[in-house]
Amino acid sequence: MEQFSVAFFEENFLQFAKQNSDVFSKHQAMNNYYVSMVSTIINDNINKNSELVKRIRNLDTAYQKVRKH
Amino acid sequence: MEQFSVAFFEENFLQFAKQNSDVFSKHQAMNNYYVSMVSTIINDNINKNSELVKRIRNLDTAYQKVRKH
Repeated sequence: MEQFSVAFFEENFLQFAKQNSDVFSKHQAMNNYYVSMVSTIINDNINKNSELVKRIRNLDTAYQKVRKH
Repeated sequence: MEQFSVAFFEENFLQFAKQNSDVFSKHQAMNNYYVSMVSTIINDNINKNSELVKRIRNLDTAYQKVRKH
């Protein structure tokens, strides 16, 4: 699966929520993952701004999709 | 205060946490605000990618500062 794609982030949201279901609600776990991923993405100075924005848009699209499940 | 500056986001994190302290922990409220702000910023197609990244970096910097309080 392509890294930083919508499908990649969807899978990671679901995995992270599942792995933390004893401590956090699905919403809380997803927010924790979202915040840490954005923080990681924007601090990766290797990438062009267009690539950073694309990755964050994919993360946000995946978040909106998984929240609806 | 300049919109989308670090100080602007710091103030908003503190306000949002205070306003929601009856429902959410400080951490939960900050995460909710962070997710909704990133979602808003990246869906603002008016701005250049460099400006979007700058705003998100300021949001993240403010988040890290307020979390330490």
